[in-house]
Amino acid sequence: MDLHQQPRLPLGFTCAARNIGLKENAPDLALFYSRVPASAAALFTRNHVVGAPVALGRELIRGGVLQAIVANSKVANVGMGEQGLADARRMGAAAARELDVPPEHVLMSSTGVIGRKLPIDKIEAGLAGMKAELQPDPLVGARGIMTTDTHAKAISCDVAGATLTIIAKGSGMIEPNLATTLIYIFTDAKLPAASLDGLLRAAADVSFNMLSIDSDTSTSDTCALLANGLAGEVDEDAFGGTLTALCTRMAEIMARDGEGATKLLRARISGAADRADARRIAKSIINSPLVKTMAYGADPNLGRVLMAVGKCFDCQVDPTRLSVRLNGVPVYDHGSRVDLGNESELRALLAGDPVEIEVDLALGDGQATAFGCDLTPGYIDENAAYYSS
Amino acid sequence: MDLHQQPRLPLGFTCAARNIGLKENAPDLALFYSRVPASAAALFTRNHVVGAPVALGRELIRGGVLQAIVANSKVANVGMGEQGLADARRMGAAAARELDVPPEHVLMSSTGVIGRKLPIDKIEAGLAGMKAELQPDPLVGARGIMTTDTHAKAISCDVAGATLTIIAKGSGMIEPNLATTLIYIFTDAKLPAASLDGLLRAAADVSFNMLSIDSDTSTSDTCALLANGLAGEVDEDAFGGTLTALCTRMAEIMARDGEGATKLLRARISGAADRADARRIAKSIINSPLVKTMAYGADPNLGRVLMAVGKCFDCQVDPTRLSVRLNGVPVYDHGSRVDLGNESELRALLAGDPVEIEVDLALGDGQATAFGCDLTPGYIDENAAYYSS
Repeated sequence: MDLHQQPRLPLGFTCAARNIGLKENAPDLALFYSRVPASAAALFTRNHVVGAPVALGRELIRGGVLQAIVANSKVANVGMGEQGLADARRMGAAAARELDVPPEHVLMSSTGVIGRKLPIDKIEAGLAGMKAELQPDPLVGARGIMTTDTHAKAISCDVAGATLTIIAKGSGMIEPNLATTLIYIFTDAKLPAASLDGLLRAAADVSFNMLSIDSDTSTSDTCALLANGLAGEVDEDAFGGTLTALCTRMAEIMARDGEGATKLLRARISGAADRADARRIAKSIINSPLVKTMAYGADPNLGRVLMAVGKCFDCQVDPTRLSVRLNGVPVYDHGSRVDLGNESELRALLAGDPVEIEVDLALGDGQATAFGCDLTPGYIDENAAYYSS
Repeated sequence: MDLHQQPRLPLGFTCAARNIGLKENAPDLALFYSRVPASAAALFTRNHVVGAPVALGRELIRGGVLQAIVANSKVANVGMGEQGLADARRMGAAAARELDVPPEHVLMSSTGVIGRKLPIDKIEAGLAGMKAELQPDPLVGARGIMTTDTHAKAISCDVAGATLTIIAKGSGMIEPNLATTLIYIFTDAKLPAASLDGLLRAAADVSFNMLSIDSDTSTSDTCALLANGLAGEVDEDAFGGTLTALCTRMAEIMARDGEGATKLLRARISGAADRADARRIAKSIINSPLVKTMAYGADPNLGRVLMAVGKCFDCQVDPTRLSVRLNGVPVYDHGSRVDLGNESELRALLAGDPVEIEVDLALGDGQATAFGCDLTPGYIDENAAYYSS
């Protein structure tokens, strides 16, 4: 899979973004549109407390067809009861009117502070005339859904004669589960609606569901895949492989841009008793605050990796079989410390990006990779007064 | 339960501490002694990767009798294989010789960096002559086991005609599970060995096992209870109640002195479907980095509390029944936001210590309380170069 130098949207997809006064200057309202109805699948957060757009999105997606997505930032429309549902419906209806599509083909997303009323009047007024601004550059739409991201996130590639594009936002309250934060995936490939859901689940399972920036699972996570078919039929296996690769790349991009992060942290587990154990241990490593601060400080503190493996109580772990490599350097071999002298070479490697931690449990065939980031003072700066700012 | 103004050890217990060159200036070797053998129980970490002293301690405690504890800081003696076990045995034997007690009555503890060889020669030499320095002030021993703690931790109280004393250390890599970091509990009460284990488990269950500073479970956690009987028999129920209350107090002290922490964070759950759900949800709240940074910033970001409750996928949660109070102020009532105007009063409360979060799930009788702390730049400062410093 080669990424396009300049990301682009597939045939028939366009987007637009505006500032409607929710944020001071940056775009805060985004619109994505396909000129023909698209087969669609979507995954949503597993959090019990969900935003109104997620509650409505779960119903919408049963139809298997979407033609547009409307998203605002700054206010998440979560915890607002019936009022929240009514506001989300008005938002979808306003986008449907502007684009002249059925309201049941418009997916809504809202991201930002939880427990505040959606400024629906501003959103309705802001949507008027936005159709005329639709354009094929995915970065325009990506900028429209940013919250604390430091850069807009859109990537694309060829896939079996069609194009595949992912637009996403980060970068805090992120440990997706069966879905992730706002991620929109567009393709002009023609794929049966019945296949889309399985393809999306398989891809998300090893990418967004293995991503954690801060172990906090958002209430608004939404991951939607729209296939409008304008590029014709494609080989499903080839499409699935590229979809997984592109989602994995986006998960890494999101991890590296986690709140306050300076680098990507990747944990590769092999030899676990089974895949479930491998996934749990990989997540334990990238979620450990002590491993995360060690990555920030480029401190080769092997003990913290051992601790993070060992604290997976419900997994099979035999300390005498454990082997660990840090950025490719063996530091622990079947339960014994490898003597590396003054470790200066290792420190230099850990000072780079990414920091890669490989653990072999030597128990079975279970493998998994998880994606995280370092923990820095920047994370605390961003989050100590997020609500008030 | 009233704490003694000045903590003291029970009848027959004494302690000593020395600097033997592991740390630059501070005490790094501690010795605790009972002049008669004591009935004993102990709990250890559930981490799969354990220190040599923990591996040996699990065998030792089967005898149900202890007369001394020897502990060093700076090097944890974890991940060192057979060499580690041999070094730990030498450490216990050296203390036994110095105190003239059987080696099987001496519990060893080591805390500090994982994956480094124990400086056993220094420890053996350092123990010589230490018996002459034994004294009844528990703060002397508490100072000897400190790592990144900002103050020595020893508290005591009366219990049914006897005395109960807890000595502990914090303050990072702390989410104990079935045990906790180094915690020594001494009493002169006379209690049957058969009862001690149950009493200790019951007390730890609602105190140290509900404590988390950074969600990382140490490899060296040890919690031992020694009862030397010199004050005679006591009422077991009264003793158990006081033991639980004193352990809870110590858990709060440890949370408040978490690495970099400026305040105690307490989550009280009620109305959960059952006790297990209540415990999981309480832990989820105090472990959430977004709740912890919010406590640091005194930012009344209710949404993060809802998120932390909702991300307990396996627990029963009905968002429409949820109620939340922050430092006693109702902010969410049966699924609806409570309008608090400009929230200035609430901000002032959250700026204090502790920050208390109460969640009522209105589903059943499950209750639990968890103890944590805020997340501050100080945590990152302490942990980015811990191994190297």
